[in-house]
Amino acid sequence: MSLNVYLSGEIHTAWREEIIAGAQANGLDIQFTSAVTDHDASDAAGDHLGVETDSFWRDHKSAKVNAIRTKTMLEQADLAIIRFGEKYKQWNAAFDAGYCAAMGTPYITLHAEDITHPLKEVDAAAMAWATTTTQVVDTLKYVMKK
Amino acid sequence: MSLNVYLSGEIHTAWREEIIAGAQANGLDIQFTSAVTDHDASDAAGDHLGVETDSFWRDHKSAKVNAIRTKTMLEQADLAIIRFGEKYKQWNAAFDAGYCAAMGTPYITLHAEDITHPLKEVDAAAMAWATTTTQVVDTLKYVMKK
Amino acid sequence: MSLNVYLSGEIHTAWREEIIAGAQANGLDIQFTSAVTDHDASDAAGDHLGVETDSFWRDHKSAKVNAIRTKTMLEQADLAIIRFGEKYKQWNAAFDAGYCAAMGTPYITLHAEDITHPLKEVDAAAMAWATTTTQVVDTLKYVMKK
Amino acid sequence: MSLNVYLSGEIHTAWREEIIAGAQANGLDIQFTSAVTDHDASDAAGDHLGVETDSFWRDHKSAKVNAIRTKTMLEQADLAIIRFGEKYKQWNAAFDAGYCAAMGTPYITLHAEDITHPLKEVDAAAMAWATTTTQVVDTLKYVMKK
Amino acid sequence: MSLNVYLSGEIHTAWREEIIAGAQANGLDIQFTSAVTDHDASDAAGDHLGVETDSFWRDHKSAKVNAIRTKTMLEQADLAIIRFGEKYKQWNAAFDAGYCAAMGTPYITLHAEDITHPLKEVDAAAMAWATTTTQVVDTLKYVMKK
Amino acid sequence: MSLNVYLSGEIHTAWREEIIAGAQANGLDIQFTSAVTDHDASDAAGDHLGVETDSFWRDHKSAKVNAIRTKTMLEQADLAIIRFGEKYKQWNAAFDAGYCAAMGTPYITLHAEDITHPLKEVDAAAMAWATTTTQVVDTLKYVMKK
Amino acid sequence: MSLNVYLSGEIHTAWREEIIAGAQANGLDIQFTSAVTDHDASDAAGDHLGVETDSFWRDHKSAKVNAIRTKTMLEQADLAIIRFGEKYKQWNAAFDAGYCAAMGTPYITLHAEDITHPLKEVDAAAMAWATTTTQVVDTLKYVMKK
Amino acid sequence: MSLNVYLSGEIHTAWREEIIAGAQANGLDIQFTSAVTDHDASDAAGDHLGVETDSFWRDHKSAKVNAIRTKTMLEQADLAIIRFGEKYKQWNAAFDAGYCAAMGTPYITLHAEDITHPLKEVDAAAMAWATTTTQVVDTLKYVMKK
Repeated sequence: MSLNVYLSGEIHTAWREEIIAGAQANGLDIQFTSAVTDHDASDAAGDHLGVETDSFWRDHKSAKVNAIRTKTMLEQADLAIIRFGEKYKQWNAAFDAGYCAAMGTPYITLHAEDITHPLKEVDAAAMAWATTTTQVVDTLKYVMKK
Repeated sequence: MSLNVYLSGEIHTAWREEIIAGAQANGLDIQFTSAVTDHDASDAAGDHLGVETDSFWRDHKSAKVNAIRTKTMLEQADLAIIRFGEKYKQWNAAFDAGYCAAMGTPYITLHAEDITHPLKEVDAAAMAWATTTTQVVDTLKYVMKK
Repeated sequence: MSLNVYLSGEIHTAWREEIIAGAQANGLDIQFTSAVTDHDASDAAGDHLGVETDSFWRDHKSAKVNAIRTKTMLEQADLAIIRFGEKYKQWNAAFDAGYCAAMGTPYITLHAEDITHPLKEVDAAAMAWATTTTQVVDTLKYVMKK
Repeated sequence: MSLNVYLSGEIHTAWREEIIAGAQANGLDIQFTSAVTDHDASDAAGDHLGVETDSFWRDHKSAKVNAIRTKTMLEQADLAIIRFGEKYKQWNAAFDAGYCAAMGTPYITLHAEDITHPLKEVDAAAMAWATTTTQVVDTLKYVMKK
Repeated sequence: MSLNVYLSGEIHTAWREEIIAGAQANGLDIQFTSAVTDHDASDAAGDHLGVETDSFWRDHKSAKVNAIRTKTMLEQADLAIIRFGEKYKQWNAAFDAGYCAAMGTPYITLHAEDITHPLKEVDAAAMAWATTTTQVVDTLKYVMKK
Repeated sequence: MSLNVYLSGEIHTAWREEIIAGAQANGLDIQFTSAVTDHDASDAAGDHLGVETDSFWRDHKSAKVNAIRTKTMLEQADLAIIRFGEKYKQWNAAFDAGYCAAMGTPYITLHAEDITHPLKEVDAAAMAWATTTTQVVDTLKYVMKK
Repeated sequence: MSLNVYLSGEIHTAWREEIIAGAQANGLDIQFTSAVTDHDASDAAGDHLGVETDSFWRDHKSAKVNAIRTKTMLEQADLAIIRFGEKYKQWNAAFDAGYCAAMGTPYITLHAEDITHPLKEVDAAAMAWATTTTQVVDTLKYVMKK
Repeated sequence: MSLNVYLSGEIHTAWREEIIAGAQANGLDIQFTSAVTDHDASDAAGDHLGVETDSFWRDHKSAKVNAIRTKTMLEQADLAIIRFGEKYKQWNAAFDAGYCAAMGTPYITLHAEDITHPLKEVDAAAMAWATTTTQVVDTLKYVMKK
């Protein structure tokens, strides 16, 4: 069994690297995909199409260029991991979860226990909730068991 | 032209009432739908199915009972208004926006200017961004013009 | 809010009548649909198309005639109630649950606590599990709250 | 011609192994997939995500982790074999059959003659009913004929 | 229960009228739809768009104008009755059956016993095979039972 | 038979009014829908959401507000009439034709003979090509024949 | 460019072999698929599942076993060639054409000129009509041009 | 990350070659597809199926043969580049954009600034607007970043 797994959400901690390393350590046949996680590059994704003076439109152009990538990846994914970190709103992670739910793509949420209440709708549509990357790797290991 | 409009997000201000009143004042043929906006009732939506001692599962059961309502409404909507208020995370609003995007249902975001950057992905997939309920009503009025 | 609710499963107890009566008592705007619940009529549903000597083909013909009705009702339903009773296998109820899951139609299971383990896959894809028809009616009441 | 075949149902007899061996003996290019068939492992599939004291929620978590695997496999399958054995309810097998029916994925049922009546709805939506694994292998052989 | 039933095929006998009359006599709430059954009008359906000297293109234009009607009716139908008469090829009836099969719309075939062999693929995907219009009406009556 | 017909394209001649009048004169049960055809109002459709100094973004905002209306109408249409007039590019009409083609919604093109070559791809996916509004009305009359 | 082409219809002449040979001679990267074209084997496709005394059910079982193969092939095809020969009804070919039309899969018809009138609905939904296998090969060659 | 990119529109300048060369120079793993861009060959695409004296039907046949290719390529594309040049109507480019929009396939428009107003609907549904092929290549480079 091989899987295509999309990693969505927080870009300030090493959760992506930990999951990828864990999958490799366990010899899992997984292709991981992800948005561009370099914050500055992501914010500037549309700048080469012409400079915008209005920050709303700069964001708009960049978000759409990023979406060419993320939408394609998300629609090709068999499974998504949706990560909510300590800081920032991370509405795009919740947006990706809703996108998965509408498509019927299973997803696992990864977040601390203190935010389970505000995330209850997102968690209710998830296939699992994990608090550590080890739990995510263990889930992937089980799911791909021979 | 008649429309079915789903109102998603913040439950602590009167934005729903303002939009509904504005639509009525303009004689627009719109059926508005919405999650149960009584916070305590919503949190207790699953309690009649058996008491849970673990708050995660209480939330889980209630969120699923609420989803029977909201998913049905969202899938029947021609248009959604997604509201992000001053306080709280409102991940469920972003989740609904992602759900709409995946289904191809148009939505309008309604939020203050100071959160346009963290909402750029949500706004990029929207058909319009409004900062006041008057703007939302004006948009509905235009869209439904004879 | 009006709903189209399909009642699937056990035909030997009065659970359908109890839910319908409860909905009416609460003034809920629900159209309930159901397979033909007269066991003998259901088994003979295909007999008018020619007598079969082989019971497999008699069952086959009748099941398909019944499916013209149930498939249409199931696909038009906003919500299904899937009932597993004390006796009989009721594989058709589990079949309907799987059909709902694949279509993304929410369903509520209704069964006693002693069969939660063999029904865990069916319950895991459900929006709620109830043990009494009163709980089902209470859920419908909440879901359709104004 | 190559096929992706999902094997659903009973885990207490060697029917999976017999079909796989038969396919190999006939040089058929088939990728077989299946739920985790180790009963204890399957029941414990969610345990690494945190211990549950309530058996309903333990089952719920495990069933959802299992569903990440089975739903993905089922949606990628060209054909499913749905097995009902002598013992146990096997509602999950009927659930998988309903899931296939809704997706338009063809399936073959495999069960003894004495349960054709309670399985008539499940058989009516099937492409074939077999009573032995040899018949299943013969069907696969014919279907993949050059 | 109300149904939308499309009547496809043979235009040289009174089978449509018999089914419609039978449904009315039984008080069934059915909306019947059908292609234009006036042969000459049907062949000339595109003539008002400009005269064609080549009969292939005359047929092509008329067939497409007819398809605006039949495709819309077929896609809105809950059920189709596919009739194969004594004479003519009636490939359009088989075409409609295939169209239904791909959409998952149930259909009933209506034809004499002597053509069951060449129609085996069409019958195999049908929900029922009838030889008389009375059988069709009886099936509709059963399906719509209260 | 009733139809929902979307009228797309040219806004500088009276073709819409002629078709609507013709349909009424023939007692056809058709609900016609259309983009806002007041050119200035259409260009200003997004102005109430905030003034833009850059004409590209003004157009962008207005086009999206207009799309809330047109996309909803187009997706609800049973049939579209796509009009290409003498002047202007009318790329939006060709865009609507492509949208219909992808959804499987039938459409009729309405344009003069001298532009059949550049419109060959658009005409090839159409159900009919008309040069006069009378021909369109005659087609609607035939399609809706009792 | 590579294509998956399904060959449907007549089994009594060498049209399949001619197209395959023509494609190979031109170095086209095409995977051709087809029903089992051995008439006796096809009629007996379900016999190994148990002998039927009633010829209708024998045909029914065999047609369904054949459909496991043909439905899978048809749904994976990028293009179908639908052949109507001199003899026999070939309703299954028309059925396959309708199936393609509903799925939006392009198909080419291959038949003599004297049956264009009864095939007008089938031809009207086709992308091309050919009378010789050389024309089919030429079309494939053009379509796959570098 | 690998992408399948469809290049639609203008055939009189070297924009296709420039984008392909740019992608290769940057080592991007992209499979580019395109309609047959030899104008005369494209106009004659259906001639081998029989000569037409009426230019409308010649165009019709050729456009449909071309559509076998372009529709298949368009439906397999992850992304489309839609090019509007200086001359000609290029309604087929706008048609392809509408087709993409309905399927949810992202596309980038490539055209000069002086036609942004008539293209506002097409641009509004695009993920980006570029004026040079270098900008398109830069966008592809960013989207496929490792």
